[in-house]
Amino acid sequence: MNKFQVVFQPGDVNIEVGKGTTIMEAMNEAGLEADFPCGGRGKCGKCRVRLMTGIGKPTAVEEETLNIKELEGGIRLACMTEVNDHIVVELLEHNKLEHNILVASEERAGKIQPHLNKVFIEVDKASMQDHRSDWSRVKDSLNKTVRHLGEVKVPVSILRQLPDTIREAKHKLTAVLYDSKVLGVEQGDTTATMLGMAFDIGTTTIVGYLLDLYTGKELSVVSTLNPQTKFGADVISRITFSNQEKDGLAKLHKEVIEAINKLIGEAMEKAGISRSDIYGVSIAANTTMHHLFLGITPRNIAVSPYVSSITEAVAVSPSELEIQINQAGKIFVLPNIAGFVGADTTAVLLATELDRSEDVKLIIDIGTNGEIALGSNKKIVACSAAAGPAFEGAQISSGMRGAAGAIDHVYFTDRLEYSVIGGGSPQGIAGSALLDAVAGLVELGIIDKRGKFLSPDKLTSPALQGFKNNIIQYEGAGAFLLADSDNTSHGRPIMITQKDIRELQLAKGAMAAGVKVLMETYGIQVEDIEEVLLAGAFGNYLNPHSACVIGLIPRELEGKIKMIGNAAGTGSKLALLSAEEFKRADDIAASVEFVELGSYPKFNSIFAENMYFKQNG
Amino acid sequence: MNKFQVVFQPGDVNIEVGKGTTIMEAMNEAGLEADFPCGGRGKCGKCRVRLMTGIGKPTAVEEETLNIKELEGGIRLACMTEVNDHIVVELLEHNKLEHNILVASEERAGKIQPHLNKVFIEVDKASMQDHRSDWSRVKDSLNKTVRHLGEVKVPVSILRQLPDTIREAKHKLTAVLYDSKVLGVEQGDTTATMLGMAFDIGTTTIVGYLLDLYTGKELSVVSTLNPQTKFGADVISRITFSNQEKDGLAKLHKEVIEAINKLIGEAMEKAGISRSDIYGVSIAANTTMHHLFLGITPRNIAVSPYVSSITEAVAVSPSELEIQINQAGKIFVLPNIAGFVGADTTAVLLATELDRSEDVKLIIDIGTNGEIALGSNKKIVACSAAAGPAFEGAQISSGMRGAAGAIDHVYFTDRLEYSVIGGGSPQGIAGSALLDAVAGLVELGIIDKRGKFLSPDKLTSPALQGFKNNIIQYEGAGAFLLADSDNTSHGRPIMITQKDIRELQLAKGAMAAGVKVLMETYGIQVEDIEEVLLAGAFGNYLNPHSACVIGLIPRELEGKIKMIGNAAGTGSKLALLSAEEFKRADDIAASVEFVELGSYPKFNSIFAENMYFKQNG
Repeated sequence: MNKFQVVFQPGDVNIEVGKGTTIMEAMNEAGLEADFPCGGRGKCGKCRVRLMTGIGKPTAVEEETLNIKELEGGIRLACMTEVNDHIVVELLEHNKLEHNILVASEERAGKIQPHLNKVFIEVDKASMQDHRSDWSRVKDSLNKTVRHLGEVKVPVSILRQLPDTIREAKHKLTAVLYDSKVLGVEQGDTTATMLGMAFDIGTTTIVGYLLDLYTGKELSVVSTLNPQTKFGADVISRITFSNQEKDGLAKLHKEVIEAINKLIGEAMEKAGISRSDIYGVSIAANTTMHHLFLGITPRNIAVSPYVSSITEAVAVSPSELEIQINQAGKIFVLPNIAGFVGADTTAVLLATELDRSEDVKLIIDIGTNGEIALGSNKKIVACSAAAGPAFEGAQISSGMRGAAGAIDHVYFTDRLEYSVIGGGSPQGIAGSALLDAVAGLVELGIIDKRGKFLSPDKLTSPALQGFKNNIIQYEGAGAFLLADSDNTSHGRPIMITQKDIRELQLAKGAMAAGVKVLMETYGIQVEDIEEVLLAGAFGNYLNPHSACVIGLIPRELEGKIKMIGNAAGTGSKLALLSAEEFKRADDIAASVEFVELGSYPKFNSIFAENMYFKQNG
Repeated sequence: MNKFQVVFQPGDVNIEVGKGTTIMEAMNEAGLEADFPCGGRGKCGKCRVRLMTGIGKPTAVEEETLNIKELEGGIRLACMTEVNDHIVVELLEHNKLEHNILVASEERAGKIQPHLNKVFIEVDKASMQDHRSDWSRVKDSLNKTVRHLGEVKVPVSILRQLPDTIREAKHKLTAVLYDSKVLGVEQGDTTATMLGMAFDIGTTTIVGYLLDLYTGKELSVVSTLNPQTKFGADVISRITFSNQEKDGLAKLHKEVIEAINKLIGEAMEKAGISRSDIYGVSIAANTTMHHLFLGITPRNIAVSPYVSSITEAVAVSPSELEIQINQAGKIFVLPNIAGFVGADTTAVLLATELDRSEDVKLIIDIGTNGEIALGSNKKIVACSAAAGPAFEGAQISSGMRGAAGAIDHVYFTDRLEYSVIGGGSPQGIAGSALLDAVAGLVELGIIDKRGKFLSPDKLTSPALQGFKNNIIQYEGAGAFLLADSDNTSHGRPIMITQKDIRELQLAKGAMAAGVKVLMETYGIQVEDIEEVLLAGAFGNYLNPHSACVIGLIPRELEGKIKMIGNAAGTGSKLALLSAEEFKRADDIAASVEFVELGSYPKFNSIFAENMYFKQNG
């Protein structure tokens, strides 16, 4: 088989690949952290690169997606272009996205109650008068030191270490106990240190918090793009990959485990500690990410009736998942609620204590998927709305994630203004800006309640004077120009097309219909809701007014909206720090009434109705 | 490196080895089941082979051990001779010992109470109205079917199988439960079959019994030499090997695991079943074999104060030990009592129900090691006597194991008669015949109470007339000829030397002293003992009268002796068939009072006293 050199610039990253390998595969192999929102199916056009040498004939897909100027300039889709020669590839700004991950969260004080118990013991020495076995002496010392320990259990792996450990440690040991089971024996007194890491594994991003398990103190925070992203942007494409590709499940499982191990390494370095100091890891994740983390097929989540393999909380040994922490530790995986309402929602409920609230609250978590919960200490109902990745920039013509170069907010004063993450010329539009822009279009009457651009002859209001140049025609329909080609980093215009508005309507319609169905199920009116909590990255960046104008959130609730940051991360932390909270998570997950929107009567009409925009007044 | 062909005859077994490999290593590599009692240290001379080609200069060790005739005839020690050419090696009779392992045992009826519980369930199908996860539905079905199951636990490995198993099985499953933990899920109704194997792992031999775990019926019995034998005949040489050789522990562990897996395969074939039908394995073994089976160092057993790493019973998953049975099964390892009184003794106590006996009984188990227990339902005391391997033929000039070609009994009528296992000319003397012979020498007054051959001029009694030719001189001392060189299969005489008698005195002296110390510790006289139970291979073959004449067992007890066969095997079976018996084994082991002979006051004088023979009357 012929082998070719591919050199990526800037950075001079060099890799040899076989003939026919796609540039995307070469990028993955070279370890370049890139983003392929459609999973390499040539659909999103987001993986544009520029060939500096070896420019060949574009594929049909590329001809459709890229314009003449791009094609002639050597722009190609990394996922479609095969390597058939030695080539040099220029990576463009969007290929090297600095991710901007929400890590901050509203904390709530939780009682600390460690899962594991480190016990220092001095083991009696054996003598001709005391023939107790090594293990008997350890057990007897533990029973003397810890009250009501009951029958202490020990795995063979520890028994194998015990003889040497006891003697090398001169009979001074620390036992790591999980209930009455000894998970580890360490030389000397190591009781002073016990750290852990709480993770929130999102479809797109993974965040980890290094905590002191005794004090709850946060020692460092780390984050990364979920490396599974290269196999698909959303949970459905991951499920498809795990199901249809050879070793697909194993690959996705390995990716997330490696990412977690890498993050642990980073957190460790930042805090100046060693892996063996880490005894606990907690995991909050949506159901698909949860299953992939555990190596369980998520196949049945994607097909009716959309069930998961397991909802209950599980505690797993690090060795079983090859998580590189102290092998005497445990991995605590929070419980799911249903196939599309996962352990991340459970974590949000744990963090917000919705199950203990006197007031009825609405919690909306818009990540790559959208989950909604409504409830109080009386009951909690929850659903998943197929919001789609529109809010994250996918399927939006100029959409991108909320990363450097993204327009994140749009302001309609007397003219159009916007802010760009990291400053400089924009290269795309983030979901939060899409909301602002469409809200403005609605308020200014540029689009009607059906979301349709009004014909130019009808746009005569003086208020529109400052936006004249922004209202354009594109592919036979109206469009709204945010930045013309002179003012973007890539020389292509950034606009909101009629199609983009349709995508947003589908997304916000699904979310709004979900809220409506939950209210009906719970049996309350919108005014009974005392508070709206917006969780997750998107919820944290959006402008609540825009969200209410477009009807993503009922307008009546605009004054009751509160951003709570990465509440799933907070829930994960609480479960890591307290065995009781971890147990409570199981109770909460089991008590939530899951509403399957697809089978809800009249759902289609509720959905259709909620796709409309309500005009002012 | 040069490679040479080694051909073993008869059988034409062919193997290629590197220059400098010993013939012993070549035999092991070729899978020839041979016996190296001293572990290949050139000390026992038992690994004689005949070189048919490539006869080189003998080593110094060989010159010392072998006589001129042997050396000239191409006889060499397999453990000392290196392969430096293509050679043909003739294996002699003793190299191919057919082992003759005691498998029969006195059975006692035990209540059957399986450790594992197979439960057939029909799992509800998921629907749009029933979103419970796969695991929730299995758990709910189990709770409906089994009363008082409590919180059911499941390992991740089972969760990984569950989605496919449920669907392929059309929702009809059998769960394998261990307490409230699901160890396996199987398609359809498999509750009809549940088999298990009870093992007795001796230092020299391993016996396995295939049992139906529902009925207790024995389906087949298999046995093999313990393949660790090639690394040393007794526990001390195994401990030395595990401690001093590179990867010694891992090698010994692997050998026994492979032997167990092979025996399971044989038992399976004999009974026409499959490995996946086997759900339980029980293990009785002495403490060293126990530790090696679990992969735990036995190092500290060999050094004062002789402690084991663990005495308590353990239940281990097959995967942890790589035991090839149904992975939903469990391995039940019986508890040890002390460093030199192992789980085999626990098994004997379980089988004999000594802890429930109104009468005081003495139990003697003479294997490669000797264990003695004395007790009743009031209390049990036990000790280990360093009987040494004399009873098994090691360290005896013509000694061999009780295998084909061994003289197993000697009769003093008007002349000497003997029986040979398997008939034909003898090649050595088994421990049971050694006892008979020495008992005869004592009764005939050929040796005195110190064990010394009387000078020929004192042997004038008419009763000795028929044995005149047997009383010879050897290496400047008396000796007793059993078969001259014309009447043996190898052309060397078989005799009992003065040195052999000393070895036997050391062995029987240790055992008798052990009995004496236990009686003192228990606080009884010999006449208070109601029964003597002889367990194990040696105990089963010896002549009780001979044992009493030489003082291995107090003469007063001759009429109270009962052979109980492989009682350790029976105990292993009971523990396999009943969770209650397995638990009871732990209680028994913990309650036994272990007496360390080495630190018993006056032990040395008791031992010395018991080395004497008591003359008649």
